[in-house]
Amino acid sequence: MKVVNYRELPTKPYENDTAHNATGRLLIGQADGAANFAMRIFELAEGGTTMHHAHPYEHEIFVHQGKGQVFEDGKWVDVKAGDAVFIPGGQVHQLRNAGSEPFLFVCAVPKGAPEL
Amino acid sequence: MKVVNYRELPTKPYENDTAHNATGRLLIGQADGAANFAMRIFELAEGGTTMHHAHPYEHEIFVHQGKGQVFEDGKWVDVKAGDAVFIPGGQVHQLRNAGSEPFLFVCAVPKGAPEL
Repeated sequence: MKVVNYRELPTKPYENDTAHNATGRLLIGQADGAANFAMRIFELAEGGTTMHHAHPYEHEIFVHQGKGQVFEDGKWVDVKAGDAVFIPGGQVHQLRNAGSEPFLFVCAVPKGAPEL
Repeated sequence: MKVVNYRELPTKPYENDTAHNATGRLLIGQADGAANFAMRIFELAEGGTTMHHAHPYEHEIFVHQGKGQVFEDGKWVDVKAGDAVFIPGGQVHQLRNAGSEPFLFVCAVPKGAPEL
């Protein structure tokens, strides 16, 4: 069994043409023996965004803290702590912080997807 | 895309010889198009416990709220909000609330496992 707090884990920053003020941490992955799917957590600072993109694999998301928005079909949908979000494979998506405190969400992906 | 708050979802109570004051909610599952793994959330009231058992599939857990303990190898390990827990398939395990507020954790399982 592995137990780890997300704050203890190394962060991967995301900064490119569409992602800003965003970091990811791998909570549980292949190296832990998790063969079927990986669990990550992303933290967006005030004004932060993830990448605007699509990929073949799905996202299963749980919002742990803060307020954000998810881009879908040309519009932004509000999400908050306690919300679950399913983004099917192939769908263009992006998340952003819509509040003043950090926006944190857990995001799981199936095997074959990049772990971070 | 699906967005839902866990509080809006139906609860399944768990009450048996080892589980008490525990409810589960299916956040994302096969009916949503999630073919590879399911995401659930469990809520343990004060004094609540999940089942003491083992099964072939793994758990990928993220503690959303509260303080709890996870049983492993004959001892109880403290966990708190922000902790991730990986329980490999085949390992005897149980979770319990170790505080006075509700203890909530997200728990994902691979396809083939019961969704709740």
